[in-house]
Amino acid sequence: MDNCRVNGTATRTIDLSDRGFQYGDGVFTTVRVQDGVPLFLGRHLDRLRHDGKRLAIPYVGSGVLLEDVRALLGDRQQAILKIQMTRGMGGRGYRLPETVVPTRVVSLHPPAPYPAEYPDSGVEVRYCRTRLGINPALAGLKHMNRLEQILARADWSAGPTVEGLMRDTEGYLVEGTMTNVFLVREGCLLTPFLDRCGVRGIMRSIIMEGAAELGITVSEERVSPADAEAADELFLTNSIIGLWPVRSLEHRHYPVGPVALELAEWLKKTTRNAINAWSAG
Amino acid sequence: MDNCRVNGTATRTIDLSDRGFQYGDGVFTTVRVQDGVPLFLGRHLDRLRHDGKRLAIPYVGSGVLLEDVRALLGDRQQAILKIQMTRGMGGRGYRLPETVVPTRVVSLHPPAPYPAEYPDSGVEVRYCRTRLGINPALAGLKHMNRLEQILARADWSAGPTVEGLMRDTEGYLVEGTMTNVFLVREGCLLTPFLDRCGVRGIMRSIIMEGAAELGITVSEERVSPADAEAADELFLTNSIIGLWPVRSLEHRHYPVGPVALELAEWLKKTTRNAINAWSAG
Repeated sequence: MDNCRVNGTATRTIDLSDRGFQYGDGVFTTVRVQDGVPLFLGRHLDRLRHDGKRLAIPYVGSGVLLEDVRALLGDRQQAILKIQMTRGMGGRGYRLPETVVPTRVVSLHPPAPYPAEYPDSGVEVRYCRTRLGINPALAGLKHMNRLEQILARADWSAGPTVEGLMRDTEGYLVEGTMTNVFLVREGCLLTPFLDRCGVRGIMRSIIMEGAAELGITVSEERVSPADAEAADELFLTNSIIGLWPVRSLEHRHYPVGPVALELAEWLKKTTRNAINAWSAG
Repeated sequence: MDNCRVNGTATRTIDLSDRGFQYGDGVFTTVRVQDGVPLFLGRHLDRLRHDGKRLAIPYVGSGVLLEDVRALLGDRQQAILKIQMTRGMGGRGYRLPETVVPTRVVSLHPPAPYPAEYPDSGVEVRYCRTRLGINPALAGLKHMNRLEQILARADWSAGPTVEGLMRDTEGYLVEGTMTNVFLVREGCLLTPFLDRCGVRGIMRSIIMEGAAELGITVSEERVSPADAEAADELFLTNSIIGLWPVRSLEHRHYPVGPVALELAEWLKKTTRNAINAWSAG
């Protein structure tokens, strides 16, 4: 953590009674900064607003967040921004405060140290032993209760495995510990429904829009490990990595295929446009 | 929050990069202080050790926690102590730090303002709309991911309802938002299995031991709302409230019955013994 602001003030600490610390009572989003531009920031702020609303946490407002982001970024070119929005302080126990004054925390981090070849070479992934519990009330949200992902990330340590895929308690494939997952089947894209668990990633939405733009049919489905086994291609997305083709999942090997490559190319162009638009405006 | 210590130092803040704030990556326990004595503290510390172990968070040690507790308590007679133990700082993203140095946070709070008649009169409870997700990996633990309880507690606001009962996503009765629940059926005690979700409360264990001591059969079962409807008595437990008989659950009314009263009497005696033992030694 290089630098942080809490409610607009530079600091490295948070009040112990903040509900973010007491209960994980908050939402967050993680933004890639490239060439000095926080990529797709508008979408990330929309997500904070949307996810907060699902939890009855009022939005802190884009104006103050933009101010925080600009203050932290300075002339940094490559970085990661994390924006958290908690329910603030107050309330007795789990009970909501009568008036919620959300806390905003914006922090700047070094860029992710992933090898530059992953987008071309693809990555090795495996299944995690840890399952995702099913709870529609929290499904899709990027909330601050992340113990399932932490346990899942501890299911493997060193070695060539780069990401772990998680199934829900009924055995369906949902997502990676930090990524969303896409399958390619006969030229069409499919990705797991996130109505029962999982995080609806910003990059997932962007890639789905890209597919639509490129005339690639895309559907959300209940996906089984057998579906993943039978897929022609598999790839992972998130806002930090962009798109990584999957080279292998357990014993099954996949090609770095044409659909992933076409979408990666489209993403590169879209990202460049986003950078130009930000710099211009 | 009257007073707090983080790793033995008096403070009201925590580092933003503590995994407790970033991910809810920690466990906690809540202790009632009565007549200057932190009730059943040994059991609470055991629970921290046990729950931490399930999440691979090493125990900070009873010596330092006892020191924190004594320092905070001073000559306070009635209070609530909250002890949190997080995975500390470090690690990239969800990944565990190579060496975990847990953070301990002990905080002192005013006693709970519940009406004194609840243990005698019983309380009104209802069902929450919010369900508990099923995840055996986290079941039973008092961890810091508490969004389900927060959403459930927001299912009702003012009015005579004192506690909400939660069902899991399959519809089984599991617990209250802040309590465990017991049913009495033909003189026997039953309480929901907590192998798939729910928190294994300290007071739940104490009451189960009390039942055994009093010759009351006690069993853990998968409990349905129909079982609750058919029960002769219903009561709630936690470390702060002790035991509250349930007077009504939705439209169903219950007597404050002999089994609850016998156990409440036993608990009073056991608590008195615990206070004497602490004061003596």
